[in-house]
Amino acid sequence: MARVVVDVMLKPEILDPQGQAVQRALPRLGFEGVSDVRQGKRFELEVDGPVDDSALARIHELAESFLANTVIEDFTVKVEEVKAEAGK
Amino acid sequence: MARVVVDVMLKPEILDPQGQAVQRALPRLGFEGVSDVRQGKRFELEVDGPVDDSALARIHELAESFLANTVIEDFTVKVEEVKAEAGK
Repeated sequence: MARVVVDVMLKPEILDPQGQAVQRALPRLGFEGVSDVRQGKRFELEVDGPVDDSALARIHELAESFLANTVIEDFTVKVEEVKAEAGK
Repeated sequence: MARVVVDVMLKPEILDPQGQAVQRALPRLGFEGVSDVRQGKRFELEVDGPVDDSALARIHELAESFLANTVIEDFTVKVEEVKAEAGK
């Protein structure tokens, strides 16, 4: 059992109104010194079995086809260690 | 200039319909072996100046107050290195 994280962010050249709204609100709320905020999505996938190269390739394909809109979004795939659970 | 990443995920005990919808769709789309999907938010903050302990403490406070709803969401704060840009 492993956890694979897919981060999906708007491409740098795409306007991000959600992030801008957060960034503009921060000084009003007393937080200075944040020059830019981008907001994206994070998917945590629990994958059965070992995450070998072929599994990663499939998850990459999955992320590219279904999790990200690659016209406007970039994505990254990372493997995260998960503590072993009893019986797994 | 440093990038700080705040990941906001629903707490494990909170139902995640978005993640479930993705997880249920995967077998239909030809991807087996993913037992769970959770969907959350990722914020990338570009912070002016060095990210020392006091800056991190403020970002933690910011994340807790404005980026996450801590009744139903957990968050993590991580510093990411950013390549130096010309003139910075």
